[in-house]
Amino acid sequence: MAHSVAILGASGYAGGELVRLLDAHPAFDVAYLGANTRAGRTLNEIHPQLAAGTRRLGPVDPAALPPVDLAFLALPHGASARTAGLLLERGTKVVDLGSDYRLDSEQRYLAAYGDPHPFPDRLRDWAYGLPELFGRSLPGSDRVAVPGCYPTATVLALAPLLAGGWIRSDGIVVNAMSGVSGAGRNIREQLQYGAIDENVGAYGVGRHRHRPEIEMALEMASGVPRVSVTFTPHLVPMQRGILVTVTATLARPAGRAALQDALATRYSDARFVDVIDGSPQTRWVVGSNRALIASFVDETTERVIVIAAIDNLLKGAAGQAVQVANLMLGLEESTGLPVAGWMP
Amino acid sequence: MAHSVAILGASGYAGGELVRLLDAHPAFDVAYLGANTRAGRTLNEIHPQLAAGTRRLGPVDPAALPPVDLAFLALPHGASARTAGLLLERGTKVVDLGSDYRLDSEQRYLAAYGDPHPFPDRLRDWAYGLPELFGRSLPGSDRVAVPGCYPTATVLALAPLLAGGWIRSDGIVVNAMSGVSGAGRNIREQLQYGAIDENVGAYGVGRHRHRPEIEMALEMASGVPRVSVTFTPHLVPMQRGILVTVTATLARPAGRAALQDALATRYSDARFVDVIDGSPQTRWVVGSNRALIASFVDETTERVIVIAAIDNLLKGAAGQAVQVANLMLGLEESTGLPVAGWMP
Amino acid sequence: MAHSVAILGASGYAGGELVRLLDAHPAFDVAYLGANTRAGRTLNEIHPQLAAGTRRLGPVDPAALPPVDLAFLALPHGASARTAGLLLERGTKVVDLGSDYRLDSEQRYLAAYGDPHPFPDRLRDWAYGLPELFGRSLPGSDRVAVPGCYPTATVLALAPLLAGGWIRSDGIVVNAMSGVSGAGRNIREQLQYGAIDENVGAYGVGRHRHRPEIEMALEMASGVPRVSVTFTPHLVPMQRGILVTVTATLARPAGRAALQDALATRYSDARFVDVIDGSPQTRWVVGSNRALIASFVDETTERVIVIAAIDNLLKGAAGQAVQVANLMLGLEESTGLPVAGWMP
Amino acid sequence: MAHSVAILGASGYAGGELVRLLDAHPAFDVAYLGANTRAGRTLNEIHPQLAAGTRRLGPVDPAALPPVDLAFLALPHGASARTAGLLLERGTKVVDLGSDYRLDSEQRYLAAYGDPHPFPDRLRDWAYGLPELFGRSLPGSDRVAVPGCYPTATVLALAPLLAGGWIRSDGIVVNAMSGVSGAGRNIREQLQYGAIDENVGAYGVGRHRHRPEIEMALEMASGVPRVSVTFTPHLVPMQRGILVTVTATLARPAGRAALQDALATRYSDARFVDVIDGSPQTRWVVGSNRALIASFVDETTERVIVIAAIDNLLKGAAGQAVQVANLMLGLEESTGLPVAGWMP
Repeated sequence: MAHSVAILGASGYAGGELVRLLDAHPAFDVAYLGANTRAGRTLNEIHPQLAAGTRRLGPVDPAALPPVDLAFLALPHGASARTAGLLLERGTKVVDLGSDYRLDSEQRYLAAYGDPHPFPDRLRDWAYGLPELFGRSLPGSDRVAVPGCYPTATVLALAPLLAGGWIRSDGIVVNAMSGVSGAGRNIREQLQYGAIDENVGAYGVGRHRHRPEIEMALEMASGVPRVSVTFTPHLVPMQRGILVTVTATLARPAGRAALQDALATRYSDARFVDVIDGSPQTRWVVGSNRALIASFVDETTERVIVIAAIDNLLKGAAGQAVQVANLMLGLEESTGLPVAGWMP
Repeated sequence: MAHSVAILGASGYAGGELVRLLDAHPAFDVAYLGANTRAGRTLNEIHPQLAAGTRRLGPVDPAALPPVDLAFLALPHGASARTAGLLLERGTKVVDLGSDYRLDSEQRYLAAYGDPHPFPDRLRDWAYGLPELFGRSLPGSDRVAVPGCYPTATVLALAPLLAGGWIRSDGIVVNAMSGVSGAGRNIREQLQYGAIDENVGAYGVGRHRHRPEIEMALEMASGVPRVSVTFTPHLVPMQRGILVTVTATLARPAGRAALQDALATRYSDARFVDVIDGSPQTRWVVGSNRALIASFVDETTERVIVIAAIDNLLKGAAGQAVQVANLMLGLEESTGLPVAGWMP
Repeated sequence: MAHSVAILGASGYAGGELVRLLDAHPAFDVAYLGANTRAGRTLNEIHPQLAAGTRRLGPVDPAALPPVDLAFLALPHGASARTAGLLLERGTKVVDLGSDYRLDSEQRYLAAYGDPHPFPDRLRDWAYGLPELFGRSLPGSDRVAVPGCYPTATVLALAPLLAGGWIRSDGIVVNAMSGVSGAGRNIREQLQYGAIDENVGAYGVGRHRHRPEIEMALEMASGVPRVSVTFTPHLVPMQRGILVTVTATLARPAGRAALQDALATRYSDARFVDVIDGSPQTRWVVGSNRALIASFVDETTERVIVIAAIDNLLKGAAGQAVQVANLMLGLEESTGLPVAGWMP
Repeated sequence: MAHSVAILGASGYAGGELVRLLDAHPAFDVAYLGANTRAGRTLNEIHPQLAAGTRRLGPVDPAALPPVDLAFLALPHGASARTAGLLLERGTKVVDLGSDYRLDSEQRYLAAYGDPHPFPDRLRDWAYGLPELFGRSLPGSDRVAVPGCYPTATVLALAPLLAGGWIRSDGIVVNAMSGVSGAGRNIREQLQYGAIDENVGAYGVGRHRHRPEIEMALEMASGVPRVSVTFTPHLVPMQRGILVTVTATLARPAGRAALQDALATRYSDARFVDVIDGSPQTRWVVGSNRALIASFVDETTERVIVIAAIDNLLKGAAGQAVQVANLMLGLEESTGLPVAGWMP
């Protein structure tokens, strides 16, 4: 029997992908769609690509929902904490694609977002939904925070090498490139076609809010007490895809084969993570829930370069959310998720 | 029980989409993949987006195939006629995505391609695989030619208006824009990024080989004996999608509502054709097997403008081929085909 | 001695190009820059590509200007009529890149814009600044309206063929594709990167306001009393460039050579118009003030296809405005204007 | 009186930009154009954007040249060493845009390119043409090697900080993104539109041949004996522009203001280098010969992030070559070079 689900925040890019995936999912039945400013409009007006007909978006209000087993929240930063609480009180499981419950402490939250968390005592109740590294905490859980797109790619790339003692935990340099959908479906001058096309630049230099999440997840996944990264994200002129290029220092002499082996061994059972020989390209994963990882050794400087690619809207958002929900509900992890991507 | 199928020409763009669709299709089992110059390589090298592992491409040689129920041919122009014949002799049904058997007469073939057809007496044995207009000829057929991408969009847009006597059959102007994948996976100077990006231009002006096919299919579908079009295709800087903008002359006074109604009525049962109110955009169909159509009347000139959008690799190639195969084999037409597209 | 000039509307795309061209112009001295909502900000904040330092934008107010010989107006539709009047009263020549004074009659203005013109009796005082066709009216003129980008390309392509009686004046179909800068530097959802990239669509179907201007200019240039066009513009994913594809009916039997000859003869003295053999591509003119034109004959339908390409911000706006100002002030037409473009 | 110049390698991207700049240069007269495989064709066929008419390309053969004062070489790697020698013997000054004479020792050349240099004893005769840092060696020189595009951006960004002792000379991480024109005008599968558009990836990971040049130039410019960098270049879907993001370790406590000041002081007289407050974007320099630089401090990790942007075909190739030639011949450094870029 199908699980009934709601999507709150269905009008954004991640929300649109949730609708697309869940409409085709064999074990879920989409019972409610909610949006903020676009409530009252039909799904077809908002997402003409979905062929979704005349279903109308309701408000993002737990009281307006029919009884559902699980709700996906794809809301702006800061908007999910209260909504999630109300849903959980009603017995609805929650998968939150937002950032409200990703961090495990008040201190990290404050460092990342500059404001105190509204419900700091609830932070530890939430599981961190990166199944390949923290999958055991998901079955049976009723509240899971889906990682950010940059942390997903970075943590998958580095955690096994940190855990195995191959690389040092300081001096890690994370450079990332994101397609423009990573900035959300906002109407801003710097996201106009005229400002993005044929242009690249960094943003949030030295102060991006995903840095504390990356450090936290790396510490949790590796057991290393203190990991420190310098994180510089860039916007590149394409719709989807994240490429993360990490440079780290070898903690002990090692060649490329050892590192590739450490990664491949760690992910040997992971349906959606592939360790490959060549340097990953984003188009190889766009449209799929896969992550591709490859490591390299620069022998003249004893540095390790690890490169990872994901689709920011799938493995970095909606796809991972469905993967998490599958595990929460006892379904096979990959149910309803694409392994093959689109190219060209 | 699954039908076993082969894909010959699996290394091109349409071939890659066939693999993606058929691997996920509930009623087909892909038993063989063949390629010309890329035979011997693994699917993963050729299509890294498919996560298709180590399956290796064999030659495009009917003798090399295991027994299969149906073969999809996605071969260069001129290469499928002989291969199709050999497969049919062995009792294998054939869906040909190429142009060898699309035209119904030697004369049209010569006009379109400049060479005589190698097997002219076989031309009339093939069905024309545009299900929404010629669907009745497909169930039980063992050989079907899938229309070209431009003809698919153009004929869907115009046939009901011609058949209903709303527009004149002469003076039809078809302007089309295609994403670059329409030119195939060829390595040519004019398809380099440096030549395509931030650039548009027309090609084949006054002599594109899809024109005779468009005229033939319009005549067949409408019953009008002689249809004449001027066809000018353009290449635009994007991967996928075709937009066709047709300008025709009203044959009798009519407003927009009558034309929209004629189109909507004709396609009321068509799962993959939607007549919409706004002007179609290609992103609304990319990733899906849908065609979107809208008509407009320019009252000051008594002209009709009809605009249609499809994904050239899906409804214009691989998707339509699967739709055709479904019908040939008695399956539900939309089995294994996406209705929702990708955006962004 | 340099002529002092002002640019009102310096913060938009055409305004930025005016600053770039005029700063490097040997005979002009930019004495004032004005903007509406961006008044008070430095040029560097608005146009970081210009390396223009700390010059600050003033208001769009004739009273705020120092005495200048000539003012370029690059203002939103409807905003230049009154400003132009005040400038002319002060003895300042005006080159208006806007649409307020392009049309020659109240009736056309009302048909194009839906509102009555505020100063209808002044419409006939303005020259139409398409130098290759109406250049004799420019020297000594003190008020010139620069044509729209679509009319510039279309009228250059068609006027010699209409004037020579080669094509019929009815049934002309104009399909155009424009880069996104043609829509101006506006912040709108449909101009976001996520809505434009990898997407094409038509807009203003059957009712674009450039149609009356195209018809007027064709009539003026050809002497044909009544020209009628169906005009369908499309937005394509690139920054700059317009490609116009015109399909018309031969008025008498003619081959391609005759048409090419008629065009080449008409433009033999035109520095910025080249009639070429191949089909024009927009990248061949982007960055330059050139227009490229080629004609073709589709003999099976007795249709003529004429294709023209310009850079919408240069020959279609700022470049043509400088060309016009050069002629108004008795300078050599091409002073300060680029003939070579940028590629890649 | 104009200096006569030749361009050998005029058919590539850098060659095309040389023609564009030099045709408009007030002190140079282009007397000869040579090409390898495209010899015999007209400039117009090769560079339709240049409006360059019917000038025909000759061979890349010093014996075919008329007497010229200076020759620009824009030839493939390894092709300029011998040609340069023959030209110098004839008394022709040489500006080499290639890599043959950029490195100062056999060892570095071998490390970078894997082959021994054909004329190792000549390596020290060549000046390194980065005017802002090594400008004093250029006036009067008759042979100058123009730096690579990545080294230009990286060395401008880092040299003042190394020279001032602000950052450590080891552990420098250089991540770079380049537009596709950086790969040259080659016809390769990985440079097809279908492979580049909507895609990013790294290449040459751990072994790019620009690394030894970066280290050499940083050592020469800073006086630091041994500089070590990890360099990872990426290809991004745009035509032009390089963005370099460098992460280095503070050598002593410092805030952002001190670093910005060190950079600004160093380049206070440099016409083409601007130290700016915001994070540079490539579009701000495309079309100009400028470099933009900004530095940031990540206080939690005591790292410095320096970001630089240039147009790879101008400041990274043809523009810098003209700047160098100006200095060699005693002209003002910026003669004939654009300061303002193009946007959009």
